Amino acid sequence: MAQKLRITILESDPERARMIVDGLCDAGDFTITVLGNETSLNQRLSELDPHVVLVDIANPSRDTLESLSLSSGANKRPVAMFVDRSDPELTKAAIDAGLSAYVVDGLTKNRIKPILDAAIARFNMVSQIRNERDAAKAALAERKTIDRAKGLLIAAKGISEEEAYALLRKTAMNQGRKTADIAHALVTASELLK
Amino acid sequence: MAQKLRITILESDPERARMIVDGLCDAGDFTITVLGNETSLNQRLSELDPHVVLVDIANPSRDTLESLSLSSGANKRPVAMFVDRSDPELTKAAIDAGLSAYVVDGLTKNRIKPILDAAIARFNMVSQIRNERDAAKAALAERKTIDRAKGLLIAAKGISEEEAYALLRKTAMNQGRKTADIAHALVTASELLK
Repeated sequence: MAQKLRITILESDPERARMIVDGLCDAGDFTITVLGNETSLNQRLSELDPHVVLVDIANPSRDTLESLSLSSGANKRPVAMFVDRSDPELTKAAIDAGLSAYVVDGLTKNRIKPILDAAIARFNMVSQIRNERDAAKAALAERKTIDRAKGLLIAAKGISEEEAYALLRKTAMNQGRKTADIAHALVTASELLK
Repeated sequence: MAQKLRITILESDPERARMIVDGLCDAGDFTITVLGNETSLNQRLSELDPHVVLVDIANPSRDTLESLSLSSGANKRPVAMFVDRSDPELTKAAIDAGLSAYVVDGLTKNRIKPILDAAIARFNMVSQIRNERDAAKAALAERKTIDRAKGLLIAAKGISEEEAYALLRKTAMNQGRKTADIAHALVTASELLK
């Protein structure tokens, strides 16, 4: 690894924080920051910009779990959470909130590195599917917009479909923009002028 | 839960199998089957059709891990795997192979139910994103095929885009099929006749 992995640990118990840090230090060379409490967590995390966040909370409620997932950026980086106890609903909420690992009653020193590895692999795997989904949805939406714009031009100017597409494309090139953007502008304008 | 969850356990060590079964029985009411060895695993699993599979192997290799993921149906049901040791590459391979939980050195009786819950929640979460991706890709592919078919009709018959679409749609309705299927047949035929 060219760059050391930056890991931020959210842990209010100094004993457990030390154990997590020890577990990580035994397993590799990381840049580790421990945050003891959660005030201005958003800001601290945006300064630290960690690759991975480890959170340890004894008794999560659904609210703390969701707010911690959100503020630790569970959808943009791997976040692993350790809890002492859970129930099926809470576990479901944790995973739906985007946590890449949710470990119930399993915080031991020698398990921290494997859980970190699993959280990173899980995050990358889910991100890839999510990116593929978003790209396919965007391509579909673009195509629909271009079709609608072509239809507007065909109706307004009595030109063929091919001519309508060529006109969109030429306008886009002249303006240094994407065909879909020009199409989107045309569709929006036509809705405003309705 | 209306129906009892069917759980299949792959475990060759009788002691550990008993511990897993005990852990599950303490936590709820399940239909549990333990398979001691892996011969004709595919067939046994298709007979049992379990909701969830739990696999315990001391020392996985990349090959056993991938073949077990495949034969236990990790992409169609939650599969949780317990291993005694792993490394980052193996962990990545396990998660990429579709395992919904990959637990390194963490098999204890009271942790089995939370891991089962997490595997189910994870599987459902990932399945949903994957289904959304597949639906968006299919919709995009359909739209491209219909556009190509329209283009073929416009060129062959000198009709307008609207007329071409109406023709595809009418043919589909007459044959009780989807417009995209008719479009696909037309595109295929035109490639064959090229």
